[in-house]
Amino acid sequence: MREMKEGTAGRQDYPLGDEIVGRINELAAISETPGHLARLFLTREHRAAADLILGWMRSAGMDAHLDAIGNVCGRYEGERPGLPCLMLGSHYDTVRDAGRWDGPLGLITALSCVANLNKRARRLPFAIEVTGFADEEGVRFASTLLGSRAVAGTFVESVLGTRDDAGVSMREAMVQFGLDPEHIGAAARARSELLGYVELHIEQGPVLEGLNLPVGVVSAIAGATRLAASLTGMAGHAGTVPMLLRRDALAGAAECIVEIEEFCRTDQDGLVGTVGYIHAMPGATNVIPGEVSFTIDIRAPTDAHRKLAVTDIVRRIEAIARRRKLSLQIDVTHENRTVPCAPWLKRQVAEAVAKEGYRVFELPSGAGHDGMAMIDIADVAMVFVRCKGGISHHPDEHVDAADADAGARVLLRLIENFRPQDARQ
Amino acid sequence: MREMKEGTAGRQDYPLGDEIVGRINELAAISETPGHLARLFLTREHRAAADLILGWMRSAGMDAHLDAIGNVCGRYEGERPGLPCLMLGSHYDTVRDAGRWDGPLGLITALSCVANLNKRARRLPFAIEVTGFADEEGVRFASTLLGSRAVAGTFVESVLGTRDDAGVSMREAMVQFGLDPEHIGAAARARSELLGYVELHIEQGPVLEGLNLPVGVVSAIAGATRLAASLTGMAGHAGTVPMLLRRDALAGAAECIVEIEEFCRTDQDGLVGTVGYIHAMPGATNVIPGEVSFTIDIRAPTDAHRKLAVTDIVRRIEAIARRRKLSLQIDVTHENRTVPCAPWLKRQVAEAVAKEGYRVFELPSGAGHDGMAMIDIADVAMVFVRCKGGISHHPDEHVDAADADAGARVLLRLIENFRPQDARQ
Repeated sequence: MREMKEGTAGRQDYPLGDEIVGRINELAAISETPGHLARLFLTREHRAAADLILGWMRSAGMDAHLDAIGNVCGRYEGERPGLPCLMLGSHYDTVRDAGRWDGPLGLITALSCVANLNKRARRLPFAIEVTGFADEEGVRFASTLLGSRAVAGTFVESVLGTRDDAGVSMREAMVQFGLDPEHIGAAARARSELLGYVELHIEQGPVLEGLNLPVGVVSAIAGATRLAASLTGMAGHAGTVPMLLRRDALAGAAECIVEIEEFCRTDQDGLVGTVGYIHAMPGATNVIPGEVSFTIDIRAPTDAHRKLAVTDIVRRIEAIARRRKLSLQIDVTHENRTVPCAPWLKRQVAEAVAKEGYRVFELPSGAGHDGMAMIDIADVAMVFVRCKGGISHHPDEHVDAADADAGARVLLRLIENFRPQDARQ
Repeated sequence: MREMKEGTAGRQDYPLGDEIVGRINELAAISETPGHLARLFLTREHRAAADLILGWMRSAGMDAHLDAIGNVCGRYEGERPGLPCLMLGSHYDTVRDAGRWDGPLGLITALSCVANLNKRARRLPFAIEVTGFADEEGVRFASTLLGSRAVAGTFVESVLGTRDDAGVSMREAMVQFGLDPEHIGAAARARSELLGYVELHIEQGPVLEGLNLPVGVVSAIAGATRLAASLTGMAGHAGTVPMLLRRDALAGAAECIVEIEEFCRTDQDGLVGTVGYIHAMPGATNVIPGEVSFTIDIRAPTDAHRKLAVTDIVRRIEAIARRRKLSLQIDVTHENRTVPCAPWLKRQVAEAVAKEGYRVFELPSGAGHDGMAMIDIADVAMVFVRCKGGISHHPDEHVDAADADAGARVLLRLIENFRPQDARQ
């Protein structure tokens, strides 16, 4: 049945969803490496994708241009020109060997909503802007949220000196692309121009699928703390050192990993902790590891909760190291604040979800999004759309046309019912 | 005080020990890489070391020759020519960046004992042979115990085709060295020629040091089972997959490592288990590991105990994998039987230890030794000598002259009091 709906026979089942899926596929064809989607900042593929999207914007009745950092910007005027806007958006760069939905779904869905309004000649008491951010993933220059930071006016000039793997600096790449690195400031928008920023995005996790819900209301973009830990014990022969005389750094690290997992599993408020990288030295079958380094990634829906958890976890690791006579080095290597979604805006998202007939379910976003930068100039809300198996950053990333349609209907209803904060009842 | 004894002022404190230390240093000067001891099979350094040792053998009143695989063989006749022999020995090859004691101590100590007998013109009712095995470590051709296997008649011809890192086959290397690969069989000895095989070796572990004992009596050369395990779960975003929905392969592996350690720690009979190598994929800070591979090395003083432990440990790992919904692949990659020291011969070692005034302490050897091959043609016993911090296969490997002396006195007393098995009381 699902196949029929997605096939030609079902083409008209999801008018918005089918259009979105078609455009997702069209955009996914623009890739540095055919068969392995990769669309990086300031490349020929960036340019080709921008041209395609600008065309879609114009065909939806929008004024469209490329801004000073390479974002695509479309504006659909309200009942009269020059009104402040509700900004919708997401990014159109990808990781390497990416899925096609992460980023483009939000951008393309917003365009479909505007096209729908335009077809009906519907004008609202505010403008709608759609922004396609040029670099959220940060693959090429190892610095994320470049597009949205430029719009928020928080772009850090020093990253212009960063070089890609080929040795090309961001400054040089901008010039080659046809942009002026001295005028990135021109991309910045004023808080007074924006009534809010709403982003639709695939969940990139398995929660909605598990609940059998096509859409969810994001409560916050979780902050993250990353730590690098290193335990040092004493290497030794796997056969000659009795168990009670060992200072095995890997056994110590294993106890830490189990402890971190247990600590987060028993938390009731969305705390997640991950050890993604581990390296044991010397790493031979018959040698007790003398040194082990590993990373810890900790996220929670509030900063206070995350910071408390980090303190607690570090204390537990210290206790394990002390008991095992291992020396410990542990450092914070990265920290992102939590970005809470604005209650007034989140409430309107929830209303739209309910009016479309879906159960309202709130969940935090564990992944980072452009809203993390946009919060500096606007209140932020997000809509999540279910993706298959929670898989993301992988060619298997998938969204059903029915769910893309559900997301679009929710977003369209949100737009049509949108009341700016100072006008709320 | 210790420094005085080891310095020139104390030269005469340990007559046997000081001679041994001098020769250890002389032999250690023969190295492929100056400053980083490496003496590999069938190299120029092998030849130079053999010539040096053959000279020492002759000066101790022995007939000496290089055998068909490159072992150095010395024979000190008994009360009349042609008597069966008590064979003493160890290896004179090394790992790379080795210590100077692992192997040479046993060989050189045996030579000092024979030289002492010879100086006193003491002949015994049996011959003494000293064998310096040409390749125990197996560094060059990745196959261990080549020297002792040739003597035991268990050399496997197929390894002649093995090539070293430079692409030279063992067969070619033998010809270059001046040996005939077609006549390795000539190195084999008959069981009737040997009354027993006794090897003195550094402990390579910290047990004797912890007990403040210079020497120990080896109970058995522990067998070893090596396993390769691989757990597969589901990779995912470190921020978007709630703890309860994860199938984290590294958290699973960590639980296995803690379980293996705990299982071995609570064993009362010398079981040791080590996870020396681990690899988590994809290995990024912000990605839940979807696949982890690791090794397990399990050793025990008896085969029955080891096999039971392996079965138990595998069962526990299977249970962890099942509970965590991880798929498990686990395979035995290597297995060595346990070589028990012969009770009658071990008893004579213990008597010699006691007569030299030391407490008799039995311990298993967790590391492999040439006795693992010699068991096929002779009963085997071993004497362990304390080494500093249990460090081995490292330039810091160290034995005090006092302990070298203690080992030599024990070995000399063993020889002088030796009663062949059929003459035992």
